[in-house]
Amino acid sequence: MESTSDNQGKVVLVIGAGDAIGSAIATRFAQEGYTVCMARRNGDRLAPLVDELNQQGLTAYAFTCDARKEDELIGLFEQVESSIGALEVVVFNIGANVPMKIVDTDSRKFFKIWEMACFSGFLTGREAAKRMLTRGQGTIIFTGATASLRGAAGFGAFASAKAGLRAMAQSLAKEMGPKNIHVAHVVIDAPVDTAWIMENVREASELKANDGLVVPAHLAENYLMLHNQPRDAWTFELDIRPWSESW
Amino acid sequence: MESTSDNQGKVVLVIGAGDAIGSAIATRFAQEGYTVCMARRNGDRLAPLVDELNQQGLTAYAFTCDARKEDELIGLFEQVESSIGALEVVVFNIGANVPMKIVDTDSRKFFKIWEMACFSGFLTGREAAKRMLTRGQGTIIFTGATASLRGAAGFGAFASAKAGLRAMAQSLAKEMGPKNIHVAHVVIDAPVDTAWIMENVREASELKANDGLVVPAHLAENYLMLHNQPRDAWTFELDIRPWSESW
Amino acid sequence: MESTSDNQGKVVLVIGAGDAIGSAIATRFAQEGYTVCMARRNGDRLAPLVDELNQQGLTAYAFTCDARKEDELIGLFEQVESSIGALEVVVFNIGANVPMKIVDTDSRKFFKIWEMACFSGFLTGREAAKRMLTRGQGTIIFTGATASLRGAAGFGAFASAKAGLRAMAQSLAKEMGPKNIHVAHVVIDAPVDTAWIMENVREASELKANDGLVVPAHLAENYLMLHNQPRDAWTFELDIRPWSESW
Amino acid sequence: MESTSDNQGKVVLVIGAGDAIGSAIATRFAQEGYTVCMARRNGDRLAPLVDELNQQGLTAYAFTCDARKEDELIGLFEQVESSIGALEVVVFNIGANVPMKIVDTDSRKFFKIWEMACFSGFLTGREAAKRMLTRGQGTIIFTGATASLRGAAGFGAFASAKAGLRAMAQSLAKEMGPKNIHVAHVVIDAPVDTAWIMENVREASELKANDGLVVPAHLAENYLMLHNQPRDAWTFELDIRPWSESW
Repeated sequence: MESTSDNQGKVVLVIGAGDAIGSAIATRFAQEGYTVCMARRNGDRLAPLVDELNQQGLTAYAFTCDARKEDELIGLFEQVESSIGALEVVVFNIGANVPMKIVDTDSRKFFKIWEMACFSGFLTGREAAKRMLTRGQGTIIFTGATASLRGAAGFGAFASAKAGLRAMAQSLAKEMGPKNIHVAHVVIDAPVDTAWIMENVREASELKANDGLVVPAHLAENYLMLHNQPRDAWTFELDIRPWSESW
Repeated sequence: MESTSDNQGKVVLVIGAGDAIGSAIATRFAQEGYTVCMARRNGDRLAPLVDELNQQGLTAYAFTCDARKEDELIGLFEQVESSIGALEVVVFNIGANVPMKIVDTDSRKFFKIWEMACFSGFLTGREAAKRMLTRGQGTIIFTGATASLRGAAGFGAFASAKAGLRAMAQSLAKEMGPKNIHVAHVVIDAPVDTAWIMENVREASELKANDGLVVPAHLAENYLMLHNQPRDAWTFELDIRPWSESW
Repeated sequence: MESTSDNQGKVVLVIGAGDAIGSAIATRFAQEGYTVCMARRNGDRLAPLVDELNQQGLTAYAFTCDARKEDELIGLFEQVESSIGALEVVVFNIGANVPMKIVDTDSRKFFKIWEMACFSGFLTGREAAKRMLTRGQGTIIFTGATASLRGAAGFGAFASAKAGLRAMAQSLAKEMGPKNIHVAHVVIDAPVDTAWIMENVREASELKANDGLVVPAHLAENYLMLHNQPRDAWTFELDIRPWSESW
Repeated sequence: MESTSDNQGKVVLVIGAGDAIGSAIATRFAQEGYTVCMARRNGDRLAPLVDELNQQGLTAYAFTCDARKEDELIGLFEQVESSIGALEVVVFNIGANVPMKIVDTDSRKFFKIWEMACFSGFLTGREAAKRMLTRGQGTIIFTGATASLRGAAGFGAFASAKAGLRAMAQSLAKEMGPKNIHVAHVVIDAPVDTAWIMENVREASELKANDGLVVPAHLAENYLMLHNQPRDAWTFELDIRPWSESW
């Protein structure tokens, strides 16, 4: 059993550290003693969480980065590695679900959804892998969704991007496994308990009251678990959904 | 049984009419009496095929179009529909397989492969669907590959784009089916008999001599078959490979 | 293009020749000039169809066989091959869908559904393959269903048997392909127009009126198409559903 | 965080408690304070493990049961529940991999492999679910393999049985989830470190020395993790393989 002190100085980077999932993952690793770096387009929104973690004696940093911009993303990796430490874990967690039919999807939207959910993931995976290769270790985890597995009516652009991310992650896992770098993909097949869903989905309160929304902290547990798997028993993919979800 | 005269004036458009698969598909439909329109980046390369088909009394046209450029592609659809006729069948057949590891993939290449294999396919599917919706009928077929189904080591960018195309096609099929528009996806899980493969793959001649390469004309038969399926028995996906292929 | 005279004396055996799908497949091959042998548990129920085909100048035979009984099934194969001719095509078409929850499934039912939908299919595939191997050619086609691909609530026993049949068919396809024997699996992902469905499903008439039920004759076309594929372009699996079906 | 005392009196039953995986799973739960019941065809072979666990102050029992025999299996469930306690976790872990081609598979072997790997699993799942339903809680975990996902050449009978087990588990998961009973399926996609593999696979020693064989104790960790997942974030399926495994 590892103690949190074993993780002192080990660095985790979460790209797409939104208010719900990304923040929960960062918090969970911080609780284990990791130094956590969180990045999102408006890094200043992370200030309250950084403060909260610091007050608990945990080490956390916030960064502003648009992960679709290659230069910004590479700059982020360089800054973190040079000023904070070697990356042990990198999590890619940017989603972009905007339901619409293919005939109603303008090309800029199709591009933008891909750029956020797939292209940024490729850049993140590549930059993480490059750096981890020099040290021969590390973990890279991508957040997936139901749409990663199939294209439903009304979700074409999102499904296209998420399926593209998953296929890229599969290739990366097969390329990096034999280099001692663990690549995994978590399929969230259900609504997550976020501020957005509580405001926009009518039955969300009732679902939540009955454990029908995925609690971000519980989801985060799986990311930590994946990183802690010994290398003779690595998981590439697992699905997550509430007990009551139809599938 | 339809006769070729039933198909007079019905228009088929093949986007990505390369020398092998795309040309074979166009030829097969032309033989059934359809008016075929072929588009590729260098439309003039299609002149010999157009001449050959015309000399056989078949109706064929060539177009130059970079399907990644939305304006060019919409222009092509408009030109074909206004000057030649209503589109009955649209085939998307642009591939872009460039094997490389994720860590060796520069962002322009990742983007370009996606732009060719996925984004162009989205634009093609959308423009075809929009026009077919006004008439309540039509067939849209996408060409897939092994990489559409899983990401192998060394094929990350291609698998990402092809998986993205397939997921988009699934969504489009589910959206368009109830509108009487048939969307299908053909998974070619093997090498095809092309000039490129004969020159670049050492064992290609021996494979070919033993029916181990997919013959484009045989592949094309499946596109015609898909279009001819009555609407109570539509196929979304089928795989194609030679008898001797391991899978 | 083959003429029906090319098929004179070539023998097709349909195991599970029920009133709808199996009969339609046999009829379609008979129309192409094949000698068709149909087997079901009560072979005498096939007499009207045999008469009808004979009156059209087509060659058809009916057999009584419980395909779950190894001795009976081997006897059928021997009888057909010795008294009628070498098997060119064998179709396995026995279903056994009885919806029920796992906790409500008694062990005899679970066994019986497997015996009908999977074990009989294994015996059929094996006996067909053995005989075709001696001649180095042939086609074996299995009928699948939505349940072949995933286990839904209320369909555990059926899904278990159909998934087992599909996995067996995959192995057989990979073993027999390089021996020039084509193995395929047709996934019917929708209700078929049968007497049973017209009597038992309330909305069946309306579905049928709108081409929402798979017409057996249209389905049968795909079995013939699979057999006619040249060996450089074989399909293992295709799905079939009406235009209006949600999936 | 649960302490082991929370688990006092909670009963885990492992069906198919072989020397490697099943024993490791039982041991892992015993270490958490659970009362573990292990069953296999020769229950007396479990005596040394029971002794060892007892000497560590852990509670373990061994049972002789042929899980293919419905009476024996029901008897085992009744005995455990009446004399030891209510089942909290049931693990089904019986494999039966015997590689052979379909044409070389005699019907008794096909049946036997199915009976062990699938039918026993159905009986186990059903009996566990029935009892857990009365209490509205519990976890049922099935052990899967690469063959659960696809039929490879030479593995037809095994793949058929394992695919059948997986489909049944999917149906059971969907039926039991809304009843607060967690059903999961673990896909072991690699060789496991067993006495058998060390003796029969030439490269096993080298694989083992390089963490290329799944260590049973590490695998077992995932079963415990699945049981401990809160009900808003349940996993149905995860895959396990060593870092160096090609897939």
